[in-house]
Amino acid sequence: MVSESWKEIDDIFHPRGVAIFGVSRKGGLGTLLLQGYIDMEFPNIYPINPKAAESGNKILGLDVFPDLKSIPGPVDLVVMSVHPKLVKELLIQCGEKSVRAVILFTAGFGEFDESGKERERELVEIARKYNMRLIGPNCMGIYCPATRVSFFPALPKESGPVGFISQSGSIANLLCFASILRGIRYSKMISFGNAADLNFNDFFEYLGDDPETRVIACYLEGIKDGQHFIKLAERISKKKPIIIWKVGETSSGARAAASHTGSLVGNYSLWTKIFDKNGIVVVKNHQELIETIGAFTNPCYPQGNSVAIISGPGGPAVSSADACEMNGLKLAKISPETVQELSKIIPEFGTSSKNPIDLGLQISFDSNLERKAIEAVARDPKVDMLLIYLGVIKKEHVKNLLRIQKEVQKPIAIVTAIDILTSSKGMGPVRNLFTPVPTRKASRFLAEMNANGISLHMTEQNAAKTLWHLYHYGIKKG
Amino acid sequence: MVSESWKEIDDIFHPRGVAIFGVSRKGGLGTLLLQGYIDMEFPNIYPINPKAAESGNKILGLDVFPDLKSIPGPVDLVVMSVHPKLVKELLIQCGEKSVRAVILFTAGFGEFDESGKERERELVEIARKYNMRLIGPNCMGIYCPATRVSFFPALPKESGPVGFISQSGSIANLLCFASILRGIRYSKMISFGNAADLNFNDFFEYLGDDPETRVIACYLEGIKDGQHFIKLAERISKKKPIIIWKVGETSSGARAAASHTGSLVGNYSLWTKIFDKNGIVVVKNHQELIETIGAFTNPCYPQGNSVAIISGPGGPAVSSADACEMNGLKLAKISPETVQELSKIIPEFGTSSKNPIDLGLQISFDSNLERKAIEAVARDPKVDMLLIYLGVIKKEHVKNLLRIQKEVQKPIAIVTAIDILTSSKGMGPVRNLFTPVPTRKASRFLAEMNANGISLHMTEQNAAKTLWHLYHYGIKKG
Repeated sequence: MVSESWKEIDDIFHPRGVAIFGVSRKGGLGTLLLQGYIDMEFPNIYPINPKAAESGNKILGLDVFPDLKSIPGPVDLVVMSVHPKLVKELLIQCGEKSVRAVILFTAGFGEFDESGKERERELVEIARKYNMRLIGPNCMGIYCPATRVSFFPALPKESGPVGFISQSGSIANLLCFASILRGIRYSKMISFGNAADLNFNDFFEYLGDDPETRVIACYLEGIKDGQHFIKLAERISKKKPIIIWKVGETSSGARAAASHTGSLVGNYSLWTKIFDKNGIVVVKNHQELIETIGAFTNPCYPQGNSVAIISGPGGPAVSSADACEMNGLKLAKISPETVQELSKIIPEFGTSSKNPIDLGLQISFDSNLERKAIEAVARDPKVDMLLIYLGVIKKEHVKNLLRIQKEVQKPIAIVTAIDILTSSKGMGPVRNLFTPVPTRKASRFLAEMNANGISLHMTEQNAAKTLWHLYHYGIKKG
Repeated sequence: MVSESWKEIDDIFHPRGVAIFGVSRKGGLGTLLLQGYIDMEFPNIYPINPKAAESGNKILGLDVFPDLKSIPGPVDLVVMSVHPKLVKELLIQCGEKSVRAVILFTAGFGEFDESGKERERELVEIARKYNMRLIGPNCMGIYCPATRVSFFPALPKESGPVGFISQSGSIANLLCFASILRGIRYSKMISFGNAADLNFNDFFEYLGDDPETRVIACYLEGIKDGQHFIKLAERISKKKPIIIWKVGETSSGARAAASHTGSLVGNYSLWTKIFDKNGIVVVKNHQELIETIGAFTNPCYPQGNSVAIISGPGGPAVSSADACEMNGLKLAKISPETVQELSKIIPEFGTSSKNPIDLGLQISFDSNLERKAIEAVARDPKVDMLLIYLGVIKKEHVKNLLRIQKEVQKPIAIVTAIDILTSSKGMGPVRNLFTPVPTRKASRFLAEMNANGISLHMTEQNAAKTLWHLYHYGIKKG
């Protein structure tokens, strides 16, 4: 049984018609948003531009309307990318047309100055009067591939299990594009900007109850109602994993957030306590964000806190051991049976069958050895999860890892020293020795790994942190 | 005036002939090392294998010798990849042939057990007797493109300004390959393993006085003579930047290091103090290592501690402000003239001309705007260095950044949200909007940027840390 406000937000993601103010034959931001809807093949898009409509010109091949009321069909959603002075009047037009929700891409309100805050309040009053909801101002709005709603050109049409809420539109955008390469797809993305009306908590609650969203990720500057957020976090974190990139840790960051979206960032250490208590994963940058999203896409939760480190290069094995201990993981005590089995597989010297397990240089040209060693360790009942350091990911790795993970059902975090998405062409003369997965295939492989409890990381610290969070969240979830 | 021991090590990098024990027609590690010398086109390579020599078979196309004494020319350097039981006898053969240095690839000594430590001491005694030097055991040895000395197949033949000393052979290897993609090249690489004879300090001192090495980077587990290292660090850090990846921070890491190269890692916080006092940059993983090496390849030192942050995406601007303050940098107070100039360049709303400077979404399709804004900020006398967050690196970016950096002579750190080396093909449908630098060109561009004081980073934290270190080291250097 969903609430009335849940239904109201869900309606915004299912508009029958979308009108866009601020489009022009010369291009510009509004036209970029229009292109987004065209690329997604949204069925009923209505660009609005009085001059173009009068002269009978099309924009991006679409008929243009002089105003909202001339549009024949229903318009549930309006996107505005116009000068801030024009917003109020257009909003009234939206009300008259029985529009359900308006995305205010336009900036120059609460984040700009005090009078902007006042003008924001006016807009909310108008919206209330006409029973409309507002997203923004100063935001990108929403992206929902299932219903063809978009906020930028060329976004993927496929849906995925991840919902993303962001105070920054550009971060939502960048994440979307970076995710293409990593094979991660989204159920819904929301960039809500200044949050004059609908705010973080509204969307957080919505995604919490959204059956299409299995993981919630967020970029957050400040929250208006902290107490409500805490209640929501407690409830939602029991149902699905939550990943938050919270900025404003320092006074410089706090000032920047205030001028970016007019946010009050709040006390960072207090936030940290709330996040920690609810098993919410906190990340610090885009790279960590996307790696963690990958890990939680279809997570495999470990039964305990003991990790086995397997590495070809001996050095990263040591560094990974540091990273695990620093992140609260225990190095698994490999059982004598496994040590004995390993001793049959890996060379006697220049290797180690104690955890961290160092496979030595031999694996550079014997991937069979690596496969057998990983199998033996993964099957050890004393091992709850694996951190595997690979020089570069090869095709054989992907297949073997998927097979092993399916058998043992333990989370596996992979670290690669050489950029994951580098194509074999880029490897120059070492092509024959290393043959990494080429770019185009990498995306598919990464998707398959993420969907099967295998996550990919640029550093051993990120991998260890993610494994700890899988453990921590797994316990909380029970 | 160089010392006798400096000359002795320098000779190892200039061998007239190299013999390799442990090669086989079936392949294996020794044969991999042989392939390394063949790929580098080293002129006088002598594979040794009594059986193959007797049957007249060639290995990898080269004549094989039954033993050292049958080799007609001088052999200055010997590489051994044989069972540990055979090392002692072969070492005596080396002495009889007046070999200058022996690389003991073979493991199974000091890192393995107590008797291994004893056997290591025996080897050193033999070496002393014949006036030979040992590298290893349990190491890859040396790579020096200028003299065609190698430790792995397919390494680059071009030299560069970076010297790398590593207790882990595989890390040296991985760094080398990852560096190909980043356009970073090396003067010398040394993997010294257990350091039975020549140890970290020897090579550290050597690179300190090596005119071909302008930057020293190290992967380090433990040092045998800490007091001597401190003296060397004080002296060398005044001449060239030093970057150290020191592992063994935790008890798990310390145990792993002991079993990897028999190292005693020492007190980590004591190490940190020594590093800090001498302006030595400490890194924690491969990713940071290579990014920092890039930044110090041909560094541009800032005149002060004030950084300007420029970002298209507003979110990363906030996060970058956090990262700068956390790393001890000050956010530059942009001068009123620059703020005024910026106000003419960037849109009024949805942007910020206060530091961090948020260029808004417009830059997605107007790189001219971005160029002008970066120019204005870079020229501001209140700005000592720049941190620029880019969604993706485009060809125009590279050219503009190089031109601006040449003009202002301030360090620039670039952060990209989307993997740096991703080819445009990999971008799928967003090709036309983003057009990132394709992989093959990226390597050349990255080399050009690193050579001109522009460094590239995966995260804002790495970028801020590197900028702080450029500042810190610049002050120390004076």
